[in-house]
Amino acid sequence: MLLSKRLCSPDSEEEPVLAARYAGDSTMIVSEAEQRPPGPGQVQIAVAYNGICGTDLHILHGHMDARVDVPAVIGHEMSGKVAAVGDGVEGWNVGDPVTVMPLAWDGTCPACRAGDRHVCQNLDFIGIDSPGALQGRWNVAAELLVPLPPTLDLRHAALVEPTAVAVHDVRRADLAAGDKAVVIGGGPIGVLIASVARSFGAEVAVIELDRKRRDAVAELGFTALDPREDTVAWVEQWSGGAGADVVFEVSGAAAAVLGAVDYAKVRGTLVVVAIHPEPRPVNLQRVFWRELRILGARVYERRDFDTAVALLDAGEIPADALITEVVPLAETQAAFDALIAGDAMKILIDVQAGQD
Amino acid sequence: MLLSKRLCSPDSEEEPVLAARYAGDSTMIVSEAEQRPPGPGQVQIAVAYNGICGTDLHILHGHMDARVDVPAVIGHEMSGKVAAVGDGVEGWNVGDPVTVMPLAWDGTCPACRAGDRHVCQNLDFIGIDSPGALQGRWNVAAELLVPLPPTLDLRHAALVEPTAVAVHDVRRADLAAGDKAVVIGGGPIGVLIASVARSFGAEVAVIELDRKRRDAVAELGFTALDPREDTVAWVEQWSGGAGADVVFEVSGAAAAVLGAVDYAKVRGTLVVVAIHPEPRPVNLQRVFWRELRILGARVYERRDFDTAVALLDAGEIPADALITEVVPLAETQAAFDALIAGDAMKILIDVQAGQD
Repeated sequence: MLLSKRLCSPDSEEEPVLAARYAGDSTMIVSEAEQRPPGPGQVQIAVAYNGICGTDLHILHGHMDARVDVPAVIGHEMSGKVAAVGDGVEGWNVGDPVTVMPLAWDGTCPACRAGDRHVCQNLDFIGIDSPGALQGRWNVAAELLVPLPPTLDLRHAALVEPTAVAVHDVRRADLAAGDKAVVIGGGPIGVLIASVARSFGAEVAVIELDRKRRDAVAELGFTALDPREDTVAWVEQWSGGAGADVVFEVSGAAAAVLGAVDYAKVRGTLVVVAIHPEPRPVNLQRVFWRELRILGARVYERRDFDTAVALLDAGEIPADALITEVVPLAETQAAFDALIAGDAMKILIDVQAGQD
Repeated sequence: MLLSKRLCSPDSEEEPVLAARYAGDSTMIVSEAEQRPPGPGQVQIAVAYNGICGTDLHILHGHMDARVDVPAVIGHEMSGKVAAVGDGVEGWNVGDPVTVMPLAWDGTCPACRAGDRHVCQNLDFIGIDSPGALQGRWNVAAELLVPLPPTLDLRHAALVEPTAVAVHDVRRADLAAGDKAVVIGGGPIGVLIASVARSFGAEVAVIELDRKRRDAVAELGFTALDPREDTVAWVEQWSGGAGADVVFEVSGAAAAVLGAVDYAKVRGTLVVVAIHPEPRPVNLQRVFWRELRILGARVYERRDFDTAVALLDAGEIPADALITEVVPLAETQAAFDALIAGDAMKILIDVQAGQD
């Protein structure tokens, strides 16, 4: 078995590789990783770039210690190239540019049996529940690979996963061309949702408290609103007295949830994108009165990944504007700290930098 | 003009009629009403029975004084017979048994233009925003009339309106045959939703705090659960580990809202039926995690009325079990007081009783 791996990619076991691990105590440690050849049905990826996500920050803060085996290689927004192919894997060749849809479902729970595998009741989110992409070589099941077009910059391709989140959110809302959408929160996911919604033909307004982020949103061509202004009146006028077709709650703030339903038209939709660790007061009177629809939206389905790749490749997603910085793997801790300080939108880790 | 009304129904202007009016201060006063012939496009109904609804109790408590012109003839769950027909009205004859869909929309607001007239942004809910059915003769626009089959007891027909609410709630949830539904709250609307859901082929469990109501629900053949038991575990076992397809929140209680999402399967639906005057804490983490759907459901559409008539006529609705008592118009105040005391499910006012 091992011999066949060596034949596929003779160097894969000999190079030393580095990995960034969450080690508890808000610490990311970069050190050498044990490198194994890909198992049967697996592909080994030479990880190129890995974006740091809000969930990774939650992990660093220790909020997800119940799910993470410390020390844990995390990371799930990535791009790379196939480095080796395990037994029984067909259709992939060394050098193919790829990203990974980091979900493994059990296929047997009631949700899977109903066809909703992406929200499997026992979902393994790879990069949280099992080892992730912040390592020079990453072995994953071949069926998780998503092919990338050769025209797509691998730095941009590290945004496929969060873009797939945004595609899923927009699709879940049944957003149609000509619709008016309000996005509450102008961080990376908010900008991605706004961009996907625009590419689907919607008009988009983004509500964001932070002045710098608001300016960045406006520079991307979106209406950017300060929540301290009378945004409800603005939306009402914008929509001819109807209200927005869809509202995306991406901020995670309790006040945003309370006010979100005031933007929505009769029979409009509020999509809950952000994670709210505590129950939030919701104006159910308004939900009742206007027959609103509130939808939870989590992760993505395979077609959302395919659409995300196509949108990034077509230049519909402002990838360069979102990527504040690309830093080498050795600076992972500093990158996390900068994101926590609010100094950046998206920081990519160049996982190959510093690998010998 | 008046002459033609007299010819249609010579007695309609001569009989003195009584009406029950909300007069403020938690008081219902029964007194003589000015009787006018039906205007052009109107039909005059000799009201037979009028059910008292939770909304009527809110009016009595003064909660809706902003919408109600005191003294106000209220009442919107009714049955009766055509007593006179106004100019330009076709298709109705004196003596026809009818009920009324008590909604008047403006037809011009964004919701109406989008086809959602029943939740018109300027909806006139007849019996609240304009005079209702607690009067011996009631003039309403002919297009609001819903014909009743001669086989349907007019007491049962007074339940058409709340049954239409239940039909609307069940339809809005996309409930399908074989689905499992949880109804939180075993009052009149809860029992009606349970009954409609059962007639649509669903299995139904009703969660109700009050022992007497729980027993009544069980006697109707539904599983009746005490919320102080581990109802989440029960639902999980009942549904083979999946959770309920649909949960109806009919109780209006904050604790019920908080727990409601725990019953729902992945991608399940929570329908907000009850009125919640204050924002309620909602477990949005669960909404996100299971990609749940929360739907507001208000009033009904015309086809919901037609279905409600058919279900009552077919005996699918336990009308006799729901109607605790039928009392004459003169006892309206006592009927309201009994409902507030929680001594009854549904009390009908016999509006003809005592009319000379």
